[in-house]
Amino acid sequence: MRDAYHEELDSIGDSLVEMARLVGSAIGRATTAMLDSDLKLAENVIEADQRVDELQHELEARAIALLARQQPVATDLRIVVTSLRMSADLERSGDLAQHVAKLARLRYPDRAVPSDLHATILEMGQLAQRLMAKAAEVIITKDVDLALQLEQDDDEMDLLHRTLFQHLMDDRWKHGIETAVDVTLLGRYYERFADHAVSVAKRVVYLVTGEHADELQADMQPEIQAAPGAESA
Amino acid sequence: MRDAYHEELDSIGDSLVEMARLVGSAIGRATTAMLDSDLKLAENVIEADQRVDELQHELEARAIALLARQQPVATDLRIVVTSLRMSADLERSGDLAQHVAKLARLRYPDRAVPSDLHATILEMGQLAQRLMAKAAEVIITKDVDLALQLEQDDDEMDLLHRTLFQHLMDDRWKHGIETAVDVTLLGRYYERFADHAVSVAKRVVYLVTGEHADELQADMQPEIQAAPGAESA
Repeated sequence: MRDAYHEELDSIGDSLVEMARLVGSAIGRATTAMLDSDLKLAENVIEADQRVDELQHELEARAIALLARQQPVATDLRIVVTSLRMSADLERSGDLAQHVAKLARLRYPDRAVPSDLHATILEMGQLAQRLMAKAAEVIITKDVDLALQLEQDDDEMDLLHRTLFQHLMDDRWKHGIETAVDVTLLGRYYERFADHAVSVAKRVVYLVTGEHADELQADMQPEIQAAPGAESA
Repeated sequence: MRDAYHEELDSIGDSLVEMARLVGSAIGRATTAMLDSDLKLAENVIEADQRVDELQHELEARAIALLARQQPVATDLRIVVTSLRMSADLERSGDLAQHVAKLARLRYPDRAVPSDLHATILEMGQLAQRLMAKAAEVIITKDVDLALQLEQDDDEMDLLHRTLFQHLMDDRWKHGIETAVDVTLLGRYYERFADHAVSVAKRVVYLVTGEHADELQADMQPEIQAAPGAESA
């Protein structure tokens, strides 16, 4: 009985890792679709999100069945409940990648991103993908140091987000309102995506140490007050 | 033992209702703070969100303790797990109200919203507050019809959001980029706030009927493709 039980717990972990891999890939491909104005790729990302949603539903059903059947306590209970939350983070990340792809589709055959912001958006997309890859690794390895590192990476995202806003607010902005709106939303999607990756990692820290990540590095994080869209809390 | 248990279950429900009331009030006050450029009120909303976060932490701790001690199955188990998700929706709604207030504070003594959009933003703020009030009522009454009604109200929010985008995209827009960015983000905050209220109601439907709200009214909801920021899924 205990064996089947731990297999079930492991399989929940596997699903989380698969979700993280799928949404990490999705944000990378969505970014490419947008920067290249690749309609096929955008549609592919939009459709692929269904699989992420399915995985979440399956995971939830299994977690609830496991709670009912095995009635775990202490650490195991925390693992199951935390897994439910992580799956919600990952599902939402998938939605955000899908939003990026939908914006690419909406603007096709035009490009939503003007060429002078191409590099910044590319960096945001790559960083988002890297953050999610690290989150997946944290789920697998339960490496607390790596998890805490994600918060630092997230500062990089805040910096990129700030750069984006500086471009927008610059008097020389010449791309008009529609593009300003698109870029504002894109910035927000990447930033929220990064937040969810960080959140996944933090939850692992909590599982491993019983302490919230914030408490572990209370004074490592200067508060960043960038731009209205940079509010993430 | 069963009595203490059901008291505990009820108290989780009470906390959810209190959270919904707090965040409903917060979005209303944040909207007022922004439209009136009222710094004190904005700061008041920003600080008050702490109480929502505390309530969520307390609720989670109680839910997990209840799972460990009482090991509920079937319906009771679903109630506890669903309550955890609702509390996450409500906590996030509180963040969104806080974002609106922070934008008011950031632009003070200016107003983030130009006067020709005042009425639309006011409507969005009021609708958001109304949606959350209904969500609270759904938690209390478990009224499935009322819950389904929320999705229709949410269509109204999508419409308002579309109106906002039409203003933004209008060639006669004369408020510059900064205001366009602010209005884009505001639109997104209200829309996401409404989504979370709907999500709370949907989860109650699921608890009561065992069916997802979407299945109950599969053909009542025309798909709305409004503007990039109107993506909520």
